[in-house]
This record gives sequence, structure tokens and C-alpha cells, in this order.
Amino acid sequence: MTFKPLTAAEMPRFSGISTFFRLPYVTEPAGLDIGVLGIPFDGGQYSLISGARFGPRAVRAASARVRAYNPSLKVNPYEKYTVADCGDVRINPLDLDAARMAITEGVKRLVDEGVIPMCVGGDHSISLPILRAIAGRYKPVGMVHFDAHSDTADEDLGVPYGHGTPFKRAVEEGLLDPTHTIQIGLRGSTEGPDEFDYALAQGIEIITLDEVMENGLKWVASRFERLRGNPIYVSLDMDVLDPAFAPATGPNPGGLAARELIYFVRKLAGQKVIGADVVEIDAPYDSPSGMTVVLAAQLIYEVMCVC
Amino acid sequence: MTFKPLTAAEMPRFSGISTFFRLPYVTEPAGLDIGVLGIPFDGGQYSLISGARFGPRAVRAASARVRAYNPSLKVNPYEKYTVADCGDVRINPLDLDAARMAITEGVKRLVDEGVIPMCVGGDHSISLPILRAIAGRYKPVGMVHFDAHSDTADEDLGVPYGHGTPFKRAVEEGLLDPTHTIQIGLRGSTEGPDEFDYALAQGIEIITLDEVMENGLKWVASRFERLRGNPIYVSLDMDVLDPAFAPATGPNPGGLAARELIYFVRKLAGQKVIGADVVEIDAPYDSPSGMTVVLAAQLIYEVMCVC
Amino acid sequence: MTFKPLTAAEMPRFSGISTFFRLPYVTEPAGLDIGVLGIPFDGGQYSLISGARFGPRAVRAASARVRAYNPSLKVNPYEKYTVADCGDVRINPLDLDAARMAITEGVKRLVDEGVIPMCVGGDHSISLPILRAIAGRYKPVGMVHFDAHSDTADEDLGVPYGHGTPFKRAVEEGLLDPTHTIQIGLRGSTEGPDEFDYALAQGIEIITLDEVMENGLKWVASRFERLRGNPIYVSLDMDVLDPAFAPATGPNPGGLAARELIYFVRKLAGQKVIGADVVEIDAPYDSPSGMTVVLAAQLIYEVMCVC
Amino acid sequence: MTFKPLTAAEMPRFSGISTFFRLPYVTEPAGLDIGVLGIPFDGGQYSLISGARFGPRAVRAASARVRAYNPSLKVNPYEKYTVADCGDVRINPLDLDAARMAITEGVKRLVDEGVIPMCVGGDHSISLPILRAIAGRYKPVGMVHFDAHSDTADEDLGVPYGHGTPFKRAVEEGLLDPTHTIQIGLRGSTEGPDEFDYALAQGIEIITLDEVMENGLKWVASRFERLRGNPIYVSLDMDVLDPAFAPATGPNPGGLAARELIYFVRKLAGQKVIGADVVEIDAPYDSPSGMTVVLAAQLIYEVMCVC
Amino acid sequence: MTFKPLTAAEMPRFSGISTFFRLPYVTEPAGLDIGVLGIPFDGGQYSLISGARFGPRAVRAASARVRAYNPSLKVNPYEKYTVADCGDVRINPLDLDAARMAITEGVKRLVDEGVIPMCVGGDHSISLPILRAIAGRYKPVGMVHFDAHSDTADEDLGVPYGHGTPFKRAVEEGLLDPTHTIQIGLRGSTEGPDEFDYALAQGIEIITLDEVMENGLKWVASRFERLRGNPIYVSLDMDVLDPAFAPATGPNPGGLAARELIYFVRKLAGQKVIGADVVEIDAPYDSPSGMTVVLAAQLIYEVMCVC
Amino acid sequence: MTFKPLTAAEMPRFSGISTFFRLPYVTEPAGLDIGVLGIPFDGGQYSLISGARFGPRAVRAASARVRAYNPSLKVNPYEKYTVADCGDVRINPLDLDAARMAITEGVKRLVDEGVIPMCVGGDHSISLPILRAIAGRYKPVGMVHFDAHSDTADEDLGVPYGHGTPFKRAVEEGLLDPTHTIQIGLRGSTEGPDEFDYALAQGIEIITLDEVMENGLKWVASRFERLRGNPIYVSLDMDVLDPAFAPATGPNPGGLAARELIYFVRKLAGQKVIGADVVEIDAPYDSPSGMTVVLAAQLIYEVMCVC
Repeated sequence: MTFKPLTAAEMPRFSGISTFFRLPYVTEPAGLDIGVLGIPFDGGQYSLISGARFGPRAVRAASARVRAYNPSLKVNPYEKYTVADCGDVRINPLDLDAARMAITEGVKRLVDEGVIPMCVGGDHSISLPILRAIAGRYKPVGMVHFDAHSDTADEDLGVPYGHGTPFKRAVEEGLLDPTHTIQIGLRGSTEGPDEFDYALAQGIEIITLDEVMENGLKWVASRFERLRGNPIYVSLDMDVLDPAFAPATGPNPGGLAARELIYFVRKLAGQKVIGADVVEIDAPYDSPSGMTVVLAAQLIYEVMCVC
Repeated sequence: MTFKPLTAAEMPRFSGISTFFRLPYVTEPAGLDIGVLGIPFDGGQYSLISGARFGPRAVRAASARVRAYNPSLKVNPYEKYTVADCGDVRINPLDLDAARMAITEGVKRLVDEGVIPMCVGGDHSISLPILRAIAGRYKPVGMVHFDAHSDTADEDLGVPYGHGTPFKRAVEEGLLDPTHTIQIGLRGSTEGPDEFDYALAQGIEIITLDEVMENGLKWVASRFERLRGNPIYVSLDMDVLDPAFAPATGPNPGGLAARELIYFVRKLAGQKVIGADVVEIDAPYDSPSGMTVVLAAQLIYEVMCVC
Repeated sequence: MTFKPLTAAEMPRFSGISTFFRLPYVTEPAGLDIGVLGIPFDGGQYSLISGARFGPRAVRAASARVRAYNPSLKVNPYEKYTVADCGDVRINPLDLDAARMAITEGVKRLVDEGVIPMCVGGDHSISLPILRAIAGRYKPVGMVHFDAHSDTADEDLGVPYGHGTPFKRAVEEGLLDPTHTIQIGLRGSTEGPDEFDYALAQGIEIITLDEVMENGLKWVASRFERLRGNPIYVSLDMDVLDPAFAPATGPNPGGLAARELIYFVRKLAGQKVIGADVVEIDAPYDSPSGMTVVLAAQLIYEVMCVC
Repeated sequence: MTFKPLTAAEMPRFSGISTFFRLPYVTEPAGLDIGVLGIPFDGGQYSLISGARFGPRAVRAASARVRAYNPSLKVNPYEKYTVADCGDVRINPLDLDAARMAITEGVKRLVDEGVIPMCVGGDHSISLPILRAIAGRYKPVGMVHFDAHSDTADEDLGVPYGHGTPFKRAVEEGLLDPTHTIQIGLRGSTEGPDEFDYALAQGIEIITLDEVMENGLKWVASRFERLRGNPIYVSLDMDVLDPAFAPATGPNPGGLAARELIYFVRKLAGQKVIGADVVEIDAPYDSPSGMTVVLAAQLIYEVMCVC
Repeated sequence: MTFKPLTAAEMPRFSGISTFFRLPYVTEPAGLDIGVLGIPFDGGQYSLISGARFGPRAVRAASARVRAYNPSLKVNPYEKYTVADCGDVRINPLDLDAARMAITEGVKRLVDEGVIPMCVGGDHSISLPILRAIAGRYKPVGMVHFDAHSDTADEDLGVPYGHGTPFKRAVEEGLLDPTHTIQIGLRGSTEGPDEFDYALAQGIEIITLDEVMENGLKWVASRFERLRGNPIYVSLDMDVLDPAFAPATGPNPGGLAARELIYFVRKLAGQKVIGADVVEIDAPYDSPSGMTVVLAAQLIYEVMCVC
Repeated sequence: MTFKPLTAAEMPRFSGISTFFRLPYVTEPAGLDIGVLGIPFDGGQYSLISGARFGPRAVRAASARVRAYNPSLKVNPYEKYTVADCGDVRINPLDLDAARMAITEGVKRLVDEGVIPMCVGGDHSISLPILRAIAGRYKPVGMVHFDAHSDTADEDLGVPYGHGTPFKRAVEEGLLDPTHTIQIGLRGSTEGPDEFDYALAQGIEIITLDEVMENGLKWVASRFERLRGNPIYVSLDMDVLDPAFAPATGPNPGGLAARELIYFVRKLAGQKVIGADVVEIDAPYDSPSGMTVVLAAQLIYEVMCVC
């Protein structure tokens, strides 16, 4: 069994019921290879922009643009895998603890059936409850993490769970293997050097934006080689991109171009990707043509193409 | 059998698969009382704004705001009727004739099963193919029509089918009973008095915006009395509203307030409404909070409450 | 000779060269009855919004919506008068004194030929140099002035010429007859009561927004009667409208509805209108569908219909 | 001691440090009569729009438009009272319980010094912790409450504290005197009649939007008479307004016009207003010219004028 | 005879009648070297964005930014050629066949007089009727084509004429010489590999975005050498650009930067450019500052500089 | 004494009184090392966009994003220098000469106390009055100037002081040492080659955008070496950036990426920077997430990091 995305000839892209990539909406994950899952939680945001809860709805609408065949990779992922829209985790924004537990349970439903979860956030704090769900099957996992920040702060506003802390928690809880973790694109100003020091001390490899500029795209991609064979989680924070390419996220000037990030994702081909998230899509702040959510949809698709 | 809209407690309004009023998406209309149907066609638009094809998708998303119980009418329409989202008519924007035929067929599927069609446009030219479908069951029908224009022009840019001509065609084709037709809110400048002259000559009752201001809301509502007992089609062109209340339509300054239009729709209670449309929702031009599409959704809901 | 606006059938409204009301662009005013003249000057603005210099360009584009026949007044002004687009006054925003002189000269070219100037601003400070030009033919003139403020301050930021002072200057220079001046819609907060005291002391009649609400539209219109026979200048500051109806102006909550202002303008029929301006159109702040500039265009058209 | 707002002549409105109404920023409330306090909390929002946390910052910027003298009421509140910007309550969006406690403490600092708190939200859930603070001095208080909803739901998504429940909690906790509470403008669809039934059973007077339309503004204002002499809290939810007038809030079609709400607030003159809030200002969704936040600022000012 | 663009000193750029590059509007093409022609047709669009009909009007306004002298090429094209604004083709959006014929006729009027047409779209389907007009003089022509797609699909939604098919039709009709055609920037996902296979089979040279990244700008430009001496049509689809640089087009993440596309256009110097189009400018979706239309105007200017 | 920026833990970034970088607002500059000063003057703008007067207010709000520690340079400037928000110069937009004098005086207050002024514009014409103030201490100064234009025109619209002329005036007045001046990123079309010819004749080094592309970032940075030891003013016109990265400025297609400009600024480390400006921030045209003002804030911070 495979599902084919609805084509424009069957129903033009501006019409019909909106699902991720125009795939069927499936409530029972058994039998799927990949499940695209919305996680509309933004209870970890505390900066100058919020609204990541609106990400999944916006990405569903925009994903109608992404067609089945990837001419760059010469792949149609829907011929290879059974992929479906698994709906949204029911998030209660009024009860942050319950919401985090619901995320773990929602992802676990997929992972327990052997389905690779492609999670559409939501803010970056969702990575922790996702990794807790994944840990039921793979533990610890390596990670390729694109971001302007390390997200290994000790706490956010005195709280252990915010969008700046997920990966410190994940290391502490034994979910994440720092020695098989690479963080790419870091550049944002911080309160001090602590986050970097912690990450480096744990054995995380950091490739700053400066190093991307200095050493070039191929060199960055070559760093993925040492991860081969390990289960790898892919986490994409939209703020790794320059705000020009992703206006609808907390803006961090001086980031990657869209095509650079797409290039990196494609170079994950051959890795054992066991899950992914795309986070920090603050949809209300997008350009009129929705460039951020279209790009987020494209990135999820590109990850599917390298699974 | 009735369908209940998904509540916020079951799934918060910003999440989940988007359908009209959070109702089930149903592809087989048999057994329904009312079917909400998207008609994303804007091949009749030729003015300074276009994009009514994006109406159904936008109204689906916004209709999540409208909850089940109408405190003004003390009615929950979903307790009275089985209502569902019947999807979108498959519109081919590259073949305008085929698109118009598809609309007639799509509406006919509902009407033939005795389902009241609530059509979400699309531009006003869709009213003609809708009325052709309705004619299979009711012919001719009366109409309550809210609009800045009479839409009884002879042709648009030399063509018989545009968004300025549907009701002249409908009278000519015997689909519409002009003597049981009331047009409310007319005010827009025209090339000349021809449209009005034609409508009046056919026996259509015109209540201009000036007359609404002069005579008051109650008087307008009292004019509906003479329609009682006849099958009535309700056609709502968003441009009957002042652009302040409906920015995402071709702007005609000096129109109705939202609450006035809602008042009128509620006063249709007791009429035999056999179908309706809400048209000219140019979603790309809406306010950031989507006030036009929210209002369009509310209007459809209000029509359901008086069916 | 009369000019007919280009119809949509000749050239759809979204296309062609943009002129006021799709009329010919005429550089020599002789022979015209009415000249629509852009005055893109905003050197009198000093508050939280600016950009009135972009008004004429935006109104030209939006005026393509306004068709020839006014169904409310049953008038086609282009059958009665020869009307043309007289272009823009060349404004130098780097030399405010020169710009004010250029306005007077530009309007004078029309007035000297007996052409009624319909001026599209620009901020309200342009009314003074316009009235100086009109004074060559009519002096002093009466005025019907729609505004949230009296604009009779003594100075703005210590300067005699700003958008808060034009009518004090005009009274002082003998251009304006305060005893035949009516100001309608005043409501905005001020630094103190001085402006009102000055205006009232000069014999200006002030009808506040409160009085409009209390006494009704007909009563307001009845106040125009005493002006009959006198040459009357009409000045429309878009901020007389509630920001809901005119978002692209300095927002003053609680103003007129668009249809109320249109009603008032229509009630000027029978007055001897010898010139008019529509000012404070800060086009960059308009709604996506351009409701403010469309309304501004409509208002100019309505004034033409009552000339 | 009184503080004067900075005038445009001293520092043009587009410049300088932004404080509420250009008043001094004061960290120690002793000696003030009225304190304007930002409460940037939106942890009670769960619908299709969020972002009320951005309200105080936006209102500060927009309040620069509101000048000292109210020509309608012929009052300058700053001559009568010492008013200051008391800053923002430190809200932790990652810890909702702590945030609610911080609100109570922050307001209590003012109330304990006899300062009337004018609170700028934030979502409507802040009214409960504010009333808890006020209860230290006045208990129970009456209320004039403008809103599209009664906000007396039993719970929101199963949680006792959301933006739909504050006034049920306040009645239960004995903070609010329902027999001296009037709710105006109610109209929004609900899950059922429970909220209304509860409010009415407690003795709250509900004036629906329908009743406002039916009975007129003066009648509504006359209902305030019976409150005279009691300490009254004023709560303004921006959604009482039609979305045309307040686009940056959860849109509820068919509400009050801005000038109607201003009229009502002015008719509170003579009441013993002991505190107020303006809530549900979702600033990221405002019109380009910021009409919602300007109106919110105006409303706070109008309340100050009737204190 | 040459025409000079109006300078800012003669009339500031925000004022005056809007024409392409502030050149005279000329209705009779004889005597011109280059004619800039608006083709406001979008009847070939069927994806998630529409509105290319608004391109010419928007580009006219934005082109006021582009001054006469190109410091990079050290050229003033208006000293070399007589260039004018030739207005817009009269497009009937309600009759797609008639509209396509009008395009051919409109372009033919220029080509028959030896005028090089610079066409401002409109969607990409206009290239076919343009090439039919050009074929009266040059047949077949080579092409340099910048696009995210090959636009050589067999049909769009079952129709031969859409914005995905123009170049397959042009090859079939013998208008285009595929062996002297280079397509640059292709990357968009498709339904399958058919378009590419067709293009390659015809001898079209495809330089994908991946190849641009891999081989660099100079290498791409070097590929133009083999076209030298042949009549070359230049077709620029704005979606060749990354959405960051051209938000107002159907977004395809990961494209060219603006300066790369400008570089390529400049490297066409020395080619025999006999016509050009810039297409897919969906003006309603542009950034507030109009970056897409400004860039489109710049691109047309750059093509003129290399003619 | 040093000032520490308020951290998010002390007061979340969306709350509190807005100052540059969350630093104290200081009215007396004595004792500071660096003063950030707003100069809200746009009386030198005359093109298709205006509104630079809104720059300082917007940058204050956005600068809350920039945290203290620069991980790229491994520097916290606030540990090295005492930095404060020095407020805005009081600009009178109705008296351009007075405004220019006020700028000189306002900057002089800092320079006379040995405080390095970091000026937030405002349009580029402010550089002249700033340099006049600096001349009291350093004269002539060298300059590193990032811009799409040379800004050495002889006059703008016949006036000596516009945003296209500041550096010709500064050379003429002996304020600027052209032989130690480097202009980077020039590319915009002009009326002719005069500006370039003048600059080159004076000994200014021009590095065009073409040369940046051709020679690479390191080469550009290497050109700064010869300035070492001289007092250097840094002037950043946001239009040096591609509009993709800085939409809220007069758009000039084909410019620098944000990270390239940040790279160049960082390479100024070791220079003797004695003042700086960031200009042409037309805030009303920014993206919804404010990418231009965030980048402007980042650039000022980066200059502080290399002082």
C-alpha cells in the first residue's frame, strides 16, 4: 500500500481539504512508513515573537505546493514509502505539563508502530517530549541539528522546559547521544558562553555560521560521514535561516540561505533518519506569499526524500 | 444521525484538519440536510481585485471560530439538521466553460438528494450555474440578494457570463422568479442606469442602501413577508458590506455594517430557504486577523440557523 | 467637449495607464470645467504617521473603480462637465517654502482659467496655499470642512505652517470667511481648548461628532442651508472618518462611517462649490484592498456630482 | 504633584522613549492617583489568534497619539490626577501559575497605596488575578463589563483558568458582586447556553448586542444609574467591538462601533471607578496604522477622564 | 529621436503619471527601437497564488525607481535607443482564447515595425502568444530562459495552454529553436520527470539550480557563448529567484539571489536579443516595499542595457 | 561603572520600557563610553519610500532581541564599555534647517564628553550634521561607508542638503578625509556617472558590488588595513543590503546579504571607530517580523563590539 498525493489535475491546489502534502488523513498509524504529525505547541516561547502553535495548520495549506517528484534527487518518496497526515497532537495551551505529555504520547503512537515521525512544530521545546517518545525504540540517538542557537541552556526564565533548553535536558535524560550530534549554523547572541561550553564539553560538534562561510558547503556535508549507521534525529529550527528566507520565525540576522539548508538536508541521504522536526514557524508573521511555511513544507519533504 | 462540530475541548481551534465549521468531510451527500460546498471559481472577475478562488479554503480555516449555539436565535442548527462539509467542486480555472458546468453538476449532486446547498464562493458568476442545478428541483425560485450591485448587466466585457450578469441570465433562463426577488444594499456606481431599469422592469424589488438608511432595519426586514411560502435562494455578495467590515472584496464605500447584515439574515427565519451562496471573498486581501472570512463563515452559519 | 472615462470594456480596470477616474491627462487646463489635481506634499505632518505624499498616486490607481453613473444622485458628472486629470503639482520635499509656493501656482493655473480644482493631497497644510490660489478669484470663501480637528491651531511645533494650522492662517489672511464656515466631526483630543475657542470666536460653526450622534444626519445636512449662494470650498480630512473606514490616515477613534460622510457630501447639492480637497491619505498604511484610497476617490467623485 | 504628558512641541510624537501617554515611568507607586500598568500575559488564550502579551508594548507606542485635553468631556485628567506609567508586571510565560500570582502582586502594589490601577492586557484571564488584588481594598466590587462573551464559563479545555472563565471564578471567590455587574455587547456563538444561564442566575445584568441595537445607546447608559455609589471595576474586552474597529483581537462579527463604546465609557462619569482593564489586544494582527491599539489607548484615557 | 525618462528633479519619483521607467506613453510604435508592453493576463495560473494580471500596473509604479545610467555596464540605454511605454494589451479575462489572440496581435504591432518588445506579464502562458507574434519576423528563435521549471509540460489540468506548457507548444509550433535554448535555475518539484525528458530530448540545454551552485556564475555565463549570432528571446520567470528576493510569485524555495540573476542578464551583452518577457509577478503578494516589482523593473532595464 | 542590559529573566523581552538594547536611558552623557542616539529625521528623502523618522522607535523595540554576548567575536561590549540609550534628538520635521542644527548639537553633547556616538537614523542626510559635530574633536575623519550609492551628488532636486549629497558636502567642508574613505557595495542606477567621478577624483576608494562578487569577502576586508590608526566613521545605509534582507528601505536589487555586511563590520576590529550611523530604516515598510530593524539593531551592536 502506498498513498499518492492528490495532483492538481485531480483537484487544483487551491481547493479541497487541506492535509500535509495532500496525503490522506489517517488516524491509525499502523502500516505507515512515515507519519507527518502536527504539534501545535508554543508554550516554550518567551521572546519577541510567538505563535508557533499556528505552524501545523499553515504548513498543511502550504504543503499543497510540493509535488511528488524531486528532480534534484530523482526520487519520489511516495513510491518508496507509505506516508500520511497523522493529524495534530491535541495540545492544551492552558496546561503546559499536560501538553508536553500529550506530545510524548502522540509521537509514541507512531514510533511504537515503527512509523518515522515527521513533526511539524510548534516551538523548539517540543523536541524534548518527542525524543522521550523516540527513546522507547532508539536510545540514545544522534542528531543533526540546524539552528541559530545550541538550545542547551540550563533553564529559560528559571524554568527547566523552554525553547532554549531541550537538548541539555535530552542529554541529561540519556535520550540524546552528544558524541553523535552535530549542530550547524549557530550564531545568535546569548547572555554568555555557557551554552556553547556545555555543548562542547558533552562532545557535541558545533559548526558555527562563521565556519559554514569559511569552509564551504561541501566541508559541512562531509562532517555527516562519521554519523553513518547510527540512528539520527533531524531537528530544523527555522531560525538557522536568515530572516530573508524565513521571516516568520524569531529573526536572527546573518543566517543560511534556503538553498544551503536544502543542500545540507539532501546530503543526509544514506543516514539512518529515525525522526525529524521542523520548528519555530510563527505563521502570523509570514510574508504575504507564505515563504516561510512553504520552505518548512519543502524541508520536511526533503527529509522524507533522504529517509 | 447528526454531526456535531468538533469542540475546542476535543481539539483546540488552531489545530486539527480544517473543515467547514469543524464538521465531518462527507463525499456522499445522501442523508444530509445541509451541505456546505466550496466553489473556488473566480473566472468571472475582471475588476481591480481578484482571488475569490481562495475563498473556500480561507472560510474553512476561519469557520473554526463559529461555535454551535446561537445565543441570539437560541438555536443550535446541528441539533436540528445533519450538516457536513461536502468538499470543493473541482474547478478548472483554465477552462471557464467546463468550470461552470462542473459547478452545476457539483451542486446538483446535493440538490438531487434533497440536500440544501450552502455554497462558498467564488465570485458572483457562480450563482448562475448553482441556480441551474437548483432548477432541477425548484423552478423558478425567489431570492433575497444582498449586494452593492444588481448584477443584472447584459454582458461583462462583451461576454454573457461574468460576475455582473448572473441574475439577468437567470431570469432569461427561467430559473429565477423576479417578482419574488428582493435586492438589498445597492449603491455602487455603474456605467449607466441600465441594470436598474432591467431589474425593475422584471419586477425585482430593489432596496438601495439609501433606502436602508432612510427607512431603517425593521422596515427592510418587513419587506421579506411577501416572500413567505415560496422557495427562496439567498445570495450574499460580501460587497454589500462596507469595506470596513469586509476588506477582502471589491471595495464599495458606504455599505452595510456587519451587524446589519446579520440582522437581516436572522429575519429570514420562517422563510423556505432552499439554497444559499456567499461570494466575492478575495481572501488574499483580508485583514491580518481575517475579518472578512470570519464574517463570511458567520453569515453561512446564520443562514443555517434560519433554514 | 466632454471627456468620457475609459470603460472596463475598452480596457479592463486593472490595466492601462493610470489617471484620475480614467480620464485624459491634460496639461493645459483651458476649456475644462473641473480639474483633478494631485498635490503630493506632506511637509506639514509631524505625528505618528506620515506619507501623505503618496496619496495622489494611490488615488489615481484606486479611482479606476469609480464608474461614471451615480445611481444615488442619478447623475453622470462627465455628461455635465469637462473633467480631466491635471497631473501633479511638482513638489520639492526638500524645500518646504518652495513647495507651498508651487502649490499656489499650480492651483492658480486652474482657477485663472475658471476651472474648479479638485485637489488630492497631501496633508492638510495644503489647504492654505490652495486657498491663496482661489483667493485670486473668490475672496473670502465659505467652507464645509470635515475633520476630527479644527486645524485652527496657532502653530505646530513653533512653526506657522503645519497640518494643524491652515485655517487660522486662512482666516488671518482674509482668504476664508469664518461666518460661512462649518466644521463637522470634530472630536480628537488636543493640548487644550484653544483651537475651539479661536474658531468659535471667529464665528465658525462647529458640529462635533457628539452632536452628529445626538442630532442625526438630517439635522447636520440642514445646517448647510445658510451657506447657499456663497462660494464654498469643501475640505475633507480623511480622519473625520473612523479608522475602521479610513485606516490609512492618522487614526482618531470614534469617527464617521463612510456612508455618513458620503451622505453629507451629497447634501451639498445646490451649493456653489468652487474647489475642494481630500487630504491626509497616508497610502502606505492602507488596508490590503486599499479601502482608504478607494473611499477618497469616491469622495472626490461625489463632490464632482454635486458641483 | 502632577505629571504632564510630554507634548509634541517638546518632543515629536514619533520620537523619544515610549511610555503610556508620554507620562513618566515610575517604579514606586506611592503618591500616584492612577497607575497605568502593563500585564503582558496571554496564557489564557486558546483560540484562533494569540499574542495578547504584545499588548502593553504596542499600547505604549500608540498612546503617544492621545493628547491631554478631552474636548468632549472638557476635561484634562492630568490636571486632576497624578498619573504615571508603572511599567509592566514581570510575566513568566513558561510558568502560568507563577504569572498569575505575579499579576496579583503587581496590582496589589498599586492598590495598597490607594492608586487606581488601569491595566493594559494581556488576555481576559488577567481580570481574575487583578480582582484578587483589588479585593484587598474593595470586596466585592461591582463591574461594568464590555465583551462579546460573558466569560463565566466553568472551565476552558478542562482548566479552571482561561480567558473564558475569569468572572465565574471571581463570583465564586467573592471578589465580584454579580448584582452590581452589567455585561454589555454579548453576542458570540458558544457551545451552549450555560454561560448565560449561570450569569443570569447570579444576578448579573446582561445587555446583549441585540438589545443595544433595539433599545439604543441612551437606554444602555441609563442602566448604569443603579450602580452609583458602589465601587465599580471596568473591564473592556476589545472583542466587544466589531472587528472593523478592532481587527487585532479574536474577531466576533457584528459588534459595537468604536464611538458607541467611547460613548458608554463617558457615561460612566460619576461612578466610583476603582480599577479597569483593557484586554485581548493581539497586537501582531493589527491594521498597518494600528487602529486597535490606538483605540485601546483612547479607551484607557476615557476611563481616566471619568474617574 | 530619443526619449529621456523624467528625472526626479523634473518631477519627484512619487508623483506624476506613472509609465514604464517614466518614459512617454506612445500608442503608435513606429520609430521606436524598444517598446515596453504590459500584458496583464493570468488565465494560465492554477496554483496556490494568482494575480499576475496586476503585474504591469505595479511594475509601472515601481519602475520610477530605476534611473537612466547603469554604473555596472556604464551604459545609458536611452541614449542608444528610442524606448517608450506602449501601454497594455487589452486583455479580456473572461475569454481566454480571445485574450491570447489579443496578445499576439498586440506584440505583432511592435514586431512588425521592427520594435523589440519588452513584455511585462502576466503569467508564463503569455510567452506562447508572444512568440507567435515574433515568428512573423524571426522563426525559430533561440531562448535564454530563467525559471524554476522547464514549462514544457504537455498539458495543465488537461488543457494545452497553461503556465506550465508554453515552451512545449512553442517547439511544436516551430517558433522556438530548442537547440539554441538554455534553461537556467530549474529546481521545482514536479509530478514526475516528463518535462525534463521532453526538453532534453529536444536538445534544450538545462542548467539546474544545483549546477549553478556547483559550477558557479562564470561557468553558467560561459554557456551563452554558443548562442551568439542567433536571434535570442529572453524569458524571465520571477520564480527562478528564491522567494526571499521575489516574494510576489509562486514560491519555490532555494532559488537564485537577485544579484546572480542580474549578473546573468548582464552577461547576455553581445547577444542578439529580439524580445523579452518578465512574468509571474503576483503583485498583491509583494512585500510592503514592493521588492518583487522593483526587481522585475530592474531586470527589464538590464535587458534593455544589453540589447 | 558599566550598565548591563536587562535580561529576559529579569523582564521578558516583550515587556518593559523599550530602550536601545535594554540599556538605561541616560540624559547626561558624561561618563559614558558609547551613547546610542536616535535621530528621527527624514527631511532628506525624496524617492518612492519615506518614513526614516520612524527608525529610532522601531530599532529600540527590536534591539531587545540582541543579547550581550557575541559568540562570533567572543566579546561582551557592555563589560568593556559603559553604554547607554541617550534618547532621541528633538527633530522638528516642519523646519529642516533647525532640525539639521539640532542634530549637530545633539551629537556634539556626546562628542564633547568623549562619548562615541552610535546614531540611529533617520535618512542619510543626517551624516553631514553628525560629521559637523564630530569635527569638533576629529577633523577630518576617514570613513568606511556601506551603501548602494556614493551619496556624493552635487545637489538633490536643486537643494544642497538631501540624502544623496552628504559626503560631497562633508568633503567640501573639510570634515571628511576622502583619501581614507572606502565606499562598499555601490550599484544603484543613477542619472549619470558624475557622483562616481567626483568621489574618485577626491581619492575615495570605491568597491562596487560587482567587485565584492568578483573578489570575495576577504579581499574587501583586506582593504581596511590601510585605514589603521586613523579616526574612522562608519556609515551604514541599509540599502547596501539586498531588499530581501532589508525590505524597509529604498529597495535596490542585487545587494549584500546580511551575513556579508556583518562579516565586514566585524573586520573593522582594530580600527579606531569614533562614531557611526545606521540610516534609511523606513520602518513602516518592514516585514511583519521586523527583519530590517532587527538587522539594523544587530549592526549597531556589531559596531559596538569592534570599538
